[in-house]
Amino acid sequence: MKSTTYHLHLETDRKRPRLFHLTEADWAATAKRHRALARRLRVTIGHDNETLGEALKTAHFMVTNGVPPREGLRDRAPHLKWIQSTAAGIDWMMPLDWLPKDVTLTNNTGAHGAKAEESCLMGLLMLQSRMPEVLANQHKHVWDCICTEPIAGKTVVIVGFGDLGQGAGRAAKKLGLKIIAVTRSGTPHRLAGRVIRASRIDSVLPQADFVIVTTPLTAETRNLINHERINRLKPGAGLINIGRAPIIDYAALRERLQRGELGGAVLDVFEQEPLPPDSPWWTTKNTFVLPHIACDDPRYIQRLFDTWFLNFERFLAGKRLKNIVDRALGY
Amino acid sequence: MKSTTYHLHLETDRKRPRLFHLTEADWAATAKRHRALARRLRVTIGHDNETLGEALKTAHFMVTNGVPPREGLRDRAPHLKWIQSTAAGIDWMMPLDWLPKDVTLTNNTGAHGAKAEESCLMGLLMLQSRMPEVLANQHKHVWDCICTEPIAGKTVVIVGFGDLGQGAGRAAKKLGLKIIAVTRSGTPHRLAGRVIRASRIDSVLPQADFVIVTTPLTAETRNLINHERINRLKPGAGLINIGRAPIIDYAALRERLQRGELGGAVLDVFEQEPLPPDSPWWTTKNTFVLPHIACDDPRYIQRLFDTWFLNFERFLAGKRLKNIVDRALGY
Repeated sequence: MKSTTYHLHLETDRKRPRLFHLTEADWAATAKRHRALARRLRVTIGHDNETLGEALKTAHFMVTNGVPPREGLRDRAPHLKWIQSTAAGIDWMMPLDWLPKDVTLTNNTGAHGAKAEESCLMGLLMLQSRMPEVLANQHKHVWDCICTEPIAGKTVVIVGFGDLGQGAGRAAKKLGLKIIAVTRSGTPHRLAGRVIRASRIDSVLPQADFVIVTTPLTAETRNLINHERINRLKPGAGLINIGRAPIIDYAALRERLQRGELGGAVLDVFEQEPLPPDSPWWTTKNTFVLPHIACDDPRYIQRLFDTWFLNFERFLAGKRLKNIVDRALGY
Repeated sequence: MKSTTYHLHLETDRKRPRLFHLTEADWAATAKRHRALARRLRVTIGHDNETLGEALKTAHFMVTNGVPPREGLRDRAPHLKWIQSTAAGIDWMMPLDWLPKDVTLTNNTGAHGAKAEESCLMGLLMLQSRMPEVLANQHKHVWDCICTEPIAGKTVVIVGFGDLGQGAGRAAKKLGLKIIAVTRSGTPHRLAGRVIRASRIDSVLPQADFVIVTTPLTAETRNLINHERINRLKPGAGLINIGRAPIIDYAALRERLQRGELGGAVLDVFEQEPLPPDSPWWTTKNTFVLPHIACDDPRYIQRLFDTWFLNFERFLAGKRLKNIVDRALGY
C-alpha cells in the first residue's frame, strides 16, 4: 500500500527581511531531520506570487509570509487544507474573510519566547540603568556618573501573557521584579504575582516602573495603551514594545518622552517598517530604536519548519493541529 | 560602669564622585538603624584632609576614600586601630608601607555584587545582540535587521571570582552560559563549570565568546590580559571590564576593536577617570563607555555604614573583623 504524497508550497514575499525567506537550503537542512515525513511531501518554492497560481492548483499545504489571494481561494486551490504563517502575529492577514472555512490557519507562536526573554532582560536593565542618557553622554564625550539602584523589587506590568509575554515574565522573574500581567481573561499564571483583566488596566498602569507590551494586534488591542493611559504612567517609568506599534498611541508616548517625563523606551516595532529615515523616532529622547529584531532568532525558518513537521505528523495521525488561529480573536 | 566612647572620623576626598562622599545625612540615617552602637561613638567629618591632622590625634577609627598620610601615621594617630576604605579595590592605597602593623585596614568588598550582576547581565546581552552596531545604526537613521541568536550555551571566561566575579557568575548562570572562572588558586566553585589558575589563562581565552574582567588591580593582575592574550580572543568575542583598566592592555584591545575583529566591549573603568574629552575610547568602534557606574548602588554609603556598624559590633565583642585587606595580596 502506497501512502499519499502531499504537495507543500513555500511562498516568500521578497520584501520581508531575509530572515523570513523560505529558502531551499533551510528546507533541505530541516528535511534531513525529518526524513520519513519529508518523503510524504512534494515541495515547491515560489516568490512574490510569481508561481503561486500554478502551485495552488495542486497544493495541500502552504507556508507563507505573504497574504494568499483574497478572492476565490477555494476555487483556485481546491486541495488546500492548511496554511502556515511564518509569523506569530497575523494582523497583516486580517480580516480572515478570504480564508475558506475548511482551511486551517496556523501561526508561529512559540518561536519567539526565548529571544523575547533575553531582549526583555536587556531592555529592562538598559532602562533601569538609564543607558539612554549614559550612551547619549558617550556621544557628547561627557563623563557623568549616572548611578542607579539594582532593579530588584521594582514593578513591571506586562500587557499580554502569551509566548512573548511569558518570555518577558521569565526575564522579570530572573531580575526579582514584581509582575502584574494584563490579559483578556485575567486567569492566574504561576509566573505573575497578579493577573488582571485588560478592562482593569487603568488601575495598574500608575504602579508600573516598567511596562512591556507583548500582545498581538487585534481589534481589542488596537490603541489599548491610548493617550490617557500613556499619561497614567508615573514619571520615570520605562516602556518596552515588542508587540505591534498600533497597540500604543505612539504620538502621546513620544510627547512624554520628549518632555523627559518618562525614563525611556525600547521600541522594536513601528507603524511603518523599515522606519523611514526622517522618522522622529530615530532621535526621540531616551529612546532606543530596535529594527524589529527583539524576538527573532536567525535560525527562525528552520525552527518554523521543525515545528511544521511536528504538526504534519499530527495531521497524518488525524490529530488537531497546534497553533491554530482563532478566526474571531485573530491570534 | 560607663562604656568607652570611641572616636570615628569620616574623611572625604571631594574629587571622588559624589556617590562616595561621606555625608552627615547618610551617617545620621544609618545611625538610626544602629542606635545602641552609635551611642558608643563620637563622630567627626572632614574633607580633603583639611581637619585630618586634628582628628587623627584622638581618632580610634577612620572611614576614608582618600589615602591617609604616608608619613608617620602611628605618631600622628596614636589611638588609631582600624581604617575602613569606602572602596572595594584599594589599589590606590598601595603599597601599604604607610599602614602601621597594628592598624587594621578593611575594604568594602561585598557592596558591589548585586549591581555587578545586573550590569554583567545587561552587558552580555548588549554584546550578544550586537547593540553597539544596532545603536550606531540608530544614530545614522539606518534600519538594518541585525538578528542574533539567544545567548544560552555560549562560553564566558570570568577573570577573578570574588564579589564582582561571582556577581558576573550569577548573571552568566541566569543566561545559561558555560562559565570558566580564572582565579589565583583555581579552587572549584559551585557557580562555575570550571575554575582554572590564572597561570593557565592562555588555554581558555580562545574558547571565550565573552570575557569579563573583575579582579582587583594588584602586582599579579596588572597587564594580566596583555597584548598577546588580547590576540588570543576569537573573532567576534565580547569583553566587559568592571575591574580596573590596567589589568588589560587597552591599546591592544582598542586596535582589535577598531579593526572590527571583536564583537564589542563594555568598559566601565579607564586609566584616567573622568575619561578626558579627547580620549579615543569615546568613539572606539563597537564600544560602550560606562562612567564607572556598573557596580555602584546610589545607596552605597549607607550600605557601607551599615556594614561598618556590623564590623564595629564584632570589634566590641573582640571578634576578628570582616573584609580585612591582606597586606601582601593587596585585597
